[in-house]
Amino acid sequence: MRCIGVMTSGGDAPGMNACIRAVVRTAAYHGLRVMGIRRGFQGLIEGEIVELRPRDVGGIIQRGGTILQTARSKEFMTEEGQRKALRRLNQHGIEGLVVIGGDGSMRGALALHQRGFPVVGVPASIDNDIWGTNMSIGVDTALNTIIDAIDRLRDTASSIGRAFLVETMGRDCGYLALIAGVIGGAEMVLIPERETRLEEVARAVMDAYERGKTHALIVIAEGSPYRTTEVAKFLESHPIGFDVRITILGHIQRGGSPTAFDRLLATRMGVKAVEALLGGERGVMTALQGRDIVTIPLEEVVQRRREANLAYYDMVLMLAR
Amino acid sequence: MRCIGVMTSGGDAPGMNACIRAVVRTAAYHGLRVMGIRRGFQGLIEGEIVELRPRDVGGIIQRGGTILQTARSKEFMTEEGQRKALRRLNQHGIEGLVVIGGDGSMRGALALHQRGFPVVGVPASIDNDIWGTNMSIGVDTALNTIIDAIDRLRDTASSIGRAFLVETMGRDCGYLALIAGVIGGAEMVLIPERETRLEEVARAVMDAYERGKTHALIVIAEGSPYRTTEVAKFLESHPIGFDVRITILGHIQRGGSPTAFDRLLATRMGVKAVEALLGGERGVMTALQGRDIVTIPLEEVVQRRREANLAYYDMVLMLAR
Amino acid sequence: MRCIGVMTSGGDAPGMNACIRAVVRTAAYHGLRVMGIRRGFQGLIEGEIVELRPRDVGGIIQRGGTILQTARSKEFMTEEGQRKALRRLNQHGIEGLVVIGGDGSMRGALALHQRGFPVVGVPASIDNDIWGTNMSIGVDTALNTIIDAIDRLRDTASSIGRAFLVETMGRDCGYLALIAGVIGGAEMVLIPERETRLEEVARAVMDAYERGKTHALIVIAEGSPYRTTEVAKFLESHPIGFDVRITILGHIQRGGSPTAFDRLLATRMGVKAVEALLGGERGVMTALQGRDIVTIPLEEVVQRRREANLAYYDMVLMLAR
Amino acid sequence: MRCIGVMTSGGDAPGMNACIRAVVRTAAYHGLRVMGIRRGFQGLIEGEIVELRPRDVGGIIQRGGTILQTARSKEFMTEEGQRKALRRLNQHGIEGLVVIGGDGSMRGALALHQRGFPVVGVPASIDNDIWGTNMSIGVDTALNTIIDAIDRLRDTASSIGRAFLVETMGRDCGYLALIAGVIGGAEMVLIPERETRLEEVARAVMDAYERGKTHALIVIAEGSPYRTTEVAKFLESHPIGFDVRITILGHIQRGGSPTAFDRLLATRMGVKAVEALLGGERGVMTALQGRDIVTIPLEEVVQRRREANLAYYDMVLMLAR
Repeated sequence: MRCIGVMTSGGDAPGMNACIRAVVRTAAYHGLRVMGIRRGFQGLIEGEIVELRPRDVGGIIQRGGTILQTARSKEFMTEEGQRKALRRLNQHGIEGLVVIGGDGSMRGALALHQRGFPVVGVPASIDNDIWGTNMSIGVDTALNTIIDAIDRLRDTASSIGRAFLVETMGRDCGYLALIAGVIGGAEMVLIPERETRLEEVARAVMDAYERGKTHALIVIAEGSPYRTTEVAKFLESHPIGFDVRITILGHIQRGGSPTAFDRLLATRMGVKAVEALLGGERGVMTALQGRDIVTIPLEEVVQRRREANLAYYDMVLMLAR
Repeated sequence: MRCIGVMTSGGDAPGMNACIRAVVRTAAYHGLRVMGIRRGFQGLIEGEIVELRPRDVGGIIQRGGTILQTARSKEFMTEEGQRKALRRLNQHGIEGLVVIGGDGSMRGALALHQRGFPVVGVPASIDNDIWGTNMSIGVDTALNTIIDAIDRLRDTASSIGRAFLVETMGRDCGYLALIAGVIGGAEMVLIPERETRLEEVARAVMDAYERGKTHALIVIAEGSPYRTTEVAKFLESHPIGFDVRITILGHIQRGGSPTAFDRLLATRMGVKAVEALLGGERGVMTALQGRDIVTIPLEEVVQRRREANLAYYDMVLMLAR
Repeated sequence: MRCIGVMTSGGDAPGMNACIRAVVRTAAYHGLRVMGIRRGFQGLIEGEIVELRPRDVGGIIQRGGTILQTARSKEFMTEEGQRKALRRLNQHGIEGLVVIGGDGSMRGALALHQRGFPVVGVPASIDNDIWGTNMSIGVDTALNTIIDAIDRLRDTASSIGRAFLVETMGRDCGYLALIAGVIGGAEMVLIPERETRLEEVARAVMDAYERGKTHALIVIAEGSPYRTTEVAKFLESHPIGFDVRITILGHIQRGGSPTAFDRLLATRMGVKAVEALLGGERGVMTALQGRDIVTIPLEEVVQRRREANLAYYDMVLMLAR
Repeated sequence: MRCIGVMTSGGDAPGMNACIRAVVRTAAYHGLRVMGIRRGFQGLIEGEIVELRPRDVGGIIQRGGTILQTARSKEFMTEEGQRKALRRLNQHGIEGLVVIGGDGSMRGALALHQRGFPVVGVPASIDNDIWGTNMSIGVDTALNTIIDAIDRLRDTASSIGRAFLVETMGRDCGYLALIAGVIGGAEMVLIPERETRLEEVARAVMDAYERGKTHALIVIAEGSPYRTTEVAKFLESHPIGFDVRITILGHIQRGGSPTAFDRLLATRMGVKAVEALLGGERGVMTALQGRDIVTIPLEEVVQRRREANLAYYDMVLMLAR
């Protein structure tokens, strides 16, 4: 192997640049050239490919977003699209590929693998919804962004009593909301993985009021059964003791300079991805298991979806007193 | 004068604690006792009053919120309420009062002044809507919170093109939205002070798309003629080129450790308030004018409302290219 | 068991308050009273003990430092001191103790255990030098503080070329310096665990200059064989191409609001410590192993000292290009 | 005027990029081309000049450092160097120049003006040592960096009592140290503008100890009569009650994303600089006076040096109780 490619794909996540940097420099250390593929699978199909030398990735480790940009590609989901992609890889002399991205990107990576192309995936998704790895790149940064917002709300709780509803990302996986609930001191968390009735939410808020708390906090995952505005309306029509205020964090959770944890995870996974390609591994994804970075088959990864650990749900209730 | 009181009132603002600290220690320096009145005018009526010694305000300069809490008081708006308040002040031997708060709090301060009690107001309001001072305590911190959020959005703009709508506080005054627009690189700003048609917004976003920008940013003050969800719906039904995403910052703008600017402003105003009381000034508010902290009559302050400077509106349009 | 005690001891670490909160509320959930012991073992001997109720630990999860303060105690190292400590525990009806602290604190905890008192330790030390746990409380926050400083240095590197020497904590363990080196993009790291000659450092800096980098970064652990000023003098007397600038972070690494990671680790360990006491475990320390919080014998912990993983040393050199 | 140039020069300061952006886009709005001159006056002499279009300055407003880099130039101090510079300006069709930088850069700007070239200066220097403007670009960001460090130290003060010595930048001007002292709660500040004996410092620390403070803070400007290590040694040899710990912030004060204040100041000054050139003003510097951005003659600026306001020195002593 003399030349590999690297791309970022799907929703962006802080730490993608740190991973690109590690891939490029590890490859250089082993004497490989690296081609950067812009705009994910769509850019691959369209041939947006530039060489990345070690100095090209200087000063990017701390930047949010991705210098290679991402895109969604319907074309790549077709057979024709995948053939075009393979043709581009061959044209540019690329003999192995590192795909950094989320669940959908791992499916794309698997498709190339199944067509015989050497691919290694790297999990990056702030939702932490990728099966097989304890943490994906970007999750830790997103959690810190959420926690910073919750801390600010708590400051203002010193004044007139309020119930704050904070909506986080997480369409299918409540990880962010759940952990933010534990470490943000929420009374209750609403997540896709667990049915919670609005009456329970109102009850939890009233309990907080009666215990003498100056505020109450409810964290709501985007993919919760109830929309945040619905929850607000329900609470406003009940005698909960507090005024209701909404914060919708939105895409600010995808941005920001990656934390130390995300930079280290991204760096270790980038190094591992290149070493896996060089070591002859094919069709795998790097994964954090315990303290180790290992590789697992992409086939396993895409068959399941990681769900949040409901033990944390009980922890929220236990600690909210 | 041997004893003064200090209270925080209305919506809380970062820097209130820094101001309390300055009041207490300046008073101590001049040999005055200081009584802290909890929960604003309502707490005054109810007699929630404790002595604050110099060591009691150690370690609070960096904290958001207010150690004295705030509250809204309907009772104080009545003659009976104001009489009760005066009785409490006399009971505790308080001979002068520093009121830290927003527009409504300055009205309350003026009411006490008009009943003959020595009062000095200090403007604190993240909206920057108080007349007569260049900046109120808390504005600079709120702006930095908004800008941090916008920076995170911009990071993610490296991927799939999006139009971000960011809702800031500002019910009557568009200052926060306007300045955030200038320094956040918005295409357009929606504020209470200026009529803007939704067609203009769509046009500005389309222009950004056509100029090749990877994203567009619209900052919307809470008090804008259009609700943020309305703007989103309008844009989604027009061919603007971008997907629309919403962030509603809400009360996180009221929290956080005060910035250097807010700490200095709060400290200088706290010092000035005590010196004004000692110097025999009555019924005034401290104000930043140019680089100086001056005092101006409360009567003037409450008759007007500060509006945002529309020159910044044109600056947004000029710089958005 | 109806009543337990909790203390923080040794050098403070961000997350100690989050751990105290978890201990108090988990205990309350299980119907236990909790006594807070101020100023560590010294405060225990002197009887500085107050009850902590669930509402007493509201609003502390985000605060650096420790509400219980810490202290070093020579007296506790004596038999007489330890007897006094036991007497105090009995006086206050404390039947089990959670000790949050570093290596020395775990020795103190073991001493009480060996005298027959039920104790569980919780590892908190920004140096990450405690054996048996992947991470101690406070390490992640300290790393983020260091990385924030390094990012700021990198910004200024756009101007006149400079070699920055950054001194981190770590008297016996180079973990902080090493990881900061990997994710901060250092050319070289100086740590207690590995001999590095100053000529190698100069060589690495010169290489960076020759490769066209606008700056070079050397991270130096406090416990490195060379003092930071020595390294500076050596480099200044060699033709390295860059001006040399020093940053000594000092105790700012011990402060700051704990990160999401540290809050979660501290919370999980606090919960586990109480459950371990209730489950009849004695003389153990909570530890992060892989993704699980387990308990390990204190006796094992104090016999060894964790050293930094030198694989990261090679990673620094590989990625610095 | 159809084409102007812009450069950054001297020590870099956060906000320089925001100013470059404002210059480029304001110029574009008025139909001017803009040439970016890299590496200050040295780059001008060597002809490192590239066109900057509005889209080239997208996404830089939040970045520390300067995309145009800076450099010091001995050659420009000679007549020959200045002639070369003028030749380059003419070669590239540049008819007016915006110079963003510190005191030395304003002298350089004045030299070009005196040779008949239309120049406008913009003050950028974290030291706030430039005469004629209330604030220079970068000062507010540097202050916030210092205050963040001091807050972290204060967190750790909850444990064993310590005296912290914090060294800030400021070779000739103690502004940063002085203001950090006021809003960081220092016991004493050491600055170039005022003689303070070490005995006074020791006395202030002892007073803090005797008043029951858990820590003491001394802020020392780089240009203070005493070196930080000297102060430490002096205190260590006196019975001050506290252990002494040193933090040397160094160049981290020059970096970081600019604050809202610095972005607004930089933006307003960039707009003003272009408008001044277009309006026929020559040999002036933009300046913040009160709330207005005005212009003042460069000749005045370079004849004086701004000193810190000693009223703040007394404020430190008054509030440290």
